[in-house]
This record gives sequence, C-alpha cells and structure tokens, in this order.
Amino acid sequence: MKVSAVITLKKDVLDPQGKVIQQALNGMGFKNIDEVRQGKYFEIDVQENDPKKANEIIEEICKKLLANLVIENYKIIETQ
Amino acid sequence: MKVSAVITLKKDVLDPQGKVIQQALNGMGFKNIDEVRQGKYFEIDVQENDPKKANEIIEEICKKLLANLVIENYKIIETQ
Repeated sequence: MKVSAVITLKKDVLDPQGKVIQQALNGMGFKNIDEVRQGKYFEIDVQENDPKKANEIIEEICKKLLANLVIENYKIIETQ
Repeated sequence: MKVSAVITLKKDVLDPQGKVIQQALNGMGFKNIDEVRQGKYFEIDVQENDPKKANEIIEEICKKLLANLVIENYKIIETQ
C-alpha cells in the first residue's frame, strides 16, 4: 500500500521559509495571502495489504525517523 | 480559506533523498518498505471565501512559484 504522510511545524514554531514564500508572493502581486507554512510530504510504499497495519507502520516511522516531535507534527493523509 | 498543496517529483525523476530514507529505514529494521518519495507540503491561508476561487489562486501560485513543472507535479489536497 502507498501511504502519504505530512510533517508540519507545530503552530507556535516560527516558519521563516514560509514567511519568505509569502513575501515573494506579495512581491509577485498575490496580495491576498495571509500566511504560508511549509512542511514535508512523504509517499511510502509499504508491503502490507491491511490499511490499518500499514498506517501503524507509517506512524511508527514518522515517530522514529521522519518527524522531530518536539517541534513538528505528523499526519497520515491518504492510504491507498 | 486554508488550502493545502503538495509538490512531488514526477514519477520518472530520481529521488535520492527518498532513497536514503528508505535505506535508513531498512537499517532500522523496517524491511518491508518498497519505496519512499519525498515532496514538499504547503499550507496557504488565502483571503477568499469561495473554495473554487481559492483553489484557482493556489493553482496559479503552484505554477508560477512553488513547482518546477519540468520535473515536479502539484496537487491541491485540501481546502478548508
């Protein structure tokens, strides 16, 4: 199964990269953008046919490797 | 509205970063991972209450700034 997960900075953590993108957009004429926050996206192909088990594996991977839980959150967004 | 978009490398484009993550997972004991591909995730807060119009703005932003359409695809995954 392919499982998609996103890792985002927690709400209270500053995101300078997102801020720069927002300023760039403003300079390009997109004046109606309030905020941009950037995160990471992972598409993981796991040998597991049970969606629940696949999600559990990906959750473990997020906790152990992909996300820094002090400043980041993870979310599984799609399983197919 | 908050619109979430992901930018991923096209299928035929090598993803060395994803490959390294897969190898790291393998070394950590996750033997059943076939492939990992990494992408970028953006959460954009736009001053627009019509979901359709908000999506159009984000699509334009993806095309003009966030994605390199030669090697990357973009996808709007959530509007809220």
